[in-house]
Amino acid sequence: MINPNHYCVIMAGGIGSRFWPMSQSSFPKQFHDVLGTGRTLIQQTFDRFEKLCLPENIFVVTHEDYKHLVKEQLPALSDAQILCEPYRRNTAPCVAYAAYKIHAINPNATMVVAPSDHLIMKEDVFVDTVSVAMQQAEGDNCLVTLGIKPSRPDTGYGYIQFVDDENATNQVRKVKTFTEKPDRELAEQFIDSGDFYWNSGIFIWTTSSIITEFENHLPEMAKQFEEGNAVYNTAQEDKFIKGTYETCTNISIDFGVMEKAAKVFVVLSDFGWSDLGTWGSLYTHLNHDKQGNGVTGKKVRLYESSDNVVHVPKDKLVVLHGLKDYIVVDANDILLVCKKDDEQKIKQFVMDIKHEFGDGIA
Amino acid sequence: MINPNHYCVIMAGGIGSRFWPMSQSSFPKQFHDVLGTGRTLIQQTFDRFEKLCLPENIFVVTHEDYKHLVKEQLPALSDAQILCEPYRRNTAPCVAYAAYKIHAINPNATMVVAPSDHLIMKEDVFVDTVSVAMQQAEGDNCLVTLGIKPSRPDTGYGYIQFVDDENATNQVRKVKTFTEKPDRELAEQFIDSGDFYWNSGIFIWTTSSIITEFENHLPEMAKQFEEGNAVYNTAQEDKFIKGTYETCTNISIDFGVMEKAAKVFVVLSDFGWSDLGTWGSLYTHLNHDKQGNGVTGKKVRLYESSDNVVHVPKDKLVVLHGLKDYIVVDANDILLVCKKDDEQKIKQFVMDIKHEFGDGIA
Repeated sequence: MINPNHYCVIMAGGIGSRFWPMSQSSFPKQFHDVLGTGRTLIQQTFDRFEKLCLPENIFVVTHEDYKHLVKEQLPALSDAQILCEPYRRNTAPCVAYAAYKIHAINPNATMVVAPSDHLIMKEDVFVDTVSVAMQQAEGDNCLVTLGIKPSRPDTGYGYIQFVDDENATNQVRKVKTFTEKPDRELAEQFIDSGDFYWNSGIFIWTTSSIITEFENHLPEMAKQFEEGNAVYNTAQEDKFIKGTYETCTNISIDFGVMEKAAKVFVVLSDFGWSDLGTWGSLYTHLNHDKQGNGVTGKKVRLYESSDNVVHVPKDKLVVLHGLKDYIVVDANDILLVCKKDDEQKIKQFVMDIKHEFGDGIA
Repeated sequence: MINPNHYCVIMAGGIGSRFWPMSQSSFPKQFHDVLGTGRTLIQQTFDRFEKLCLPENIFVVTHEDYKHLVKEQLPALSDAQILCEPYRRNTAPCVAYAAYKIHAINPNATMVVAPSDHLIMKEDVFVDTVSVAMQQAEGDNCLVTLGIKPSRPDTGYGYIQFVDDENATNQVRKVKTFTEKPDRELAEQFIDSGDFYWNSGIFIWTTSSIITEFENHLPEMAKQFEEGNAVYNTAQEDKFIKGTYETCTNISIDFGVMEKAAKVFVVLSDFGWSDLGTWGSLYTHLNHDKQGNGVTGKKVRLYESSDNVVHVPKDKLVVLHGLKDYIVVDANDILLVCKKDDEQKIKQFVMDIKHEFGDGIA
């Protein structure tokens, strides 16, 4: 029995520039079927949340440029369920908008906020974990985040340190600190200590709790969005949002609220999660042939090639010979061949290209 | 003053499979601007021959599938100047068809026969060389071929051994033997000996001489094409050719006539020739950047990459990182990345692909 007070908010405004050229500002990563499963990442996220919320309680926050992509890929959503941001202002305004709007609909709401472009392998464990988080959020009027059991000293993730509690009967722990991407040495210390988990960026709280915390830690932003209470879910909402976004602070929910709030809990989780943040992390989740190649595309032939990640249109004929440890992507009329170990250079390539050929191309 | 008895025949029926995927049976190499000069290879060949013949004396022999490409690329040609082959029967029938047809128009004709897909860098030297060959062909009723001064022991070319003549006043020599593609050791001996030149596949003869040699060495083929004398240059020609090609022998002019004829001469030449038969040979004729990359395409960026040949559509954005000595081709919705040293494997790739995806694709 699904609780009608439960809501899900999918954040889908990102650009995914590390996945260029597959991901581009005109058609970012979350709208791609990056794993070749037949469903795009945002569709998979939506499918997952249908197990937690009534379909009419699922909202998507996105940039207005992507509204047509959201409608196309999630036809079950009504226009009222798609919140369009006129400017990119990071995650705090995105969460505030969704929280105030949902609170206006249902003051007893509990909401999950999650990125649209993550991979979750064990859906049932995820659903159980979110249920635990919701109970915690509702019972204790606190902010809850999902922490992922780390499998390696990854320097690309944020870490959550928690207060260990030998008497705990479930996986909920009090958060001690948040740490942004550490260097290698620090990441190794985190792993060794055993009381650091990865920050998944998936949050759970009641709308009244998060609104209170906005009032405490981002009072100006709280005031701005509170002014909308008269117009949320009316024809005036869009115009109000445009004005509000124009002037509101560009800040993340982690930095603006989570790191400052007093009562924050983490649910220690292990549901096969990846943020799919890089080609390398995508590579580990693709099926591999005997030579270790992870291929998306139906007409790809590899000769004397191993350990490559190949992402090409499904009908494109591709013949690769003598490549080892490369990323090969053909997408949006752009071809990229790049050594896998050097994928962090892709951002520089994109900057060079924008400089030379203009913004439209990346 | 151009001699109105001089004719040029451009052979343009080949598939160019070594240049896959740029060259495909539906759109072969001779119809591509492989060097990025703005003119396709057949257009360059035509431009060259306009210096030797009246434009109405230039004929193209091609497969009927390519007639539209010839008309498109050489709009100066009338339909009567495009000879369409209904089947692929190698070069002897192609030469016979052109020779008998031109002989029916002008029994005093001298003709040059040349492939449509070769590169000639020094056009003026070429024009002078052909003029020498024409004088020889007309004065001595013989067959003449152009031999190219070899610059390396290439195993991909045929070789012509000539009889050296210390008293010669020009570059014309009697041919001793033709040798097909030799192995490396033999090729080196050829170069060291000094009396072997590369066989360019460009021939010069009077129509009456070559017809006589067909009668001597391919009498059945001669008889077949002689039967057409009543219909060449009439509305019945196409139907006649269809019937003739259906049954005529599949044989090259080299093997069927040149290697057997008694009076064959070679003009020792050096006009910057390449048959552009492989990506490697194309590579040597492209302009190179400082890292030795030969690039066709306007939006190609290379990082930490050297000695590659890159052939992509001019508006395709391509970023390559960490490649050395590769062929990178994006053409006709097919992507090939292949080590340059292994380019002879491309034929095998094409066979594999035809086997898996059908003939249409290559």
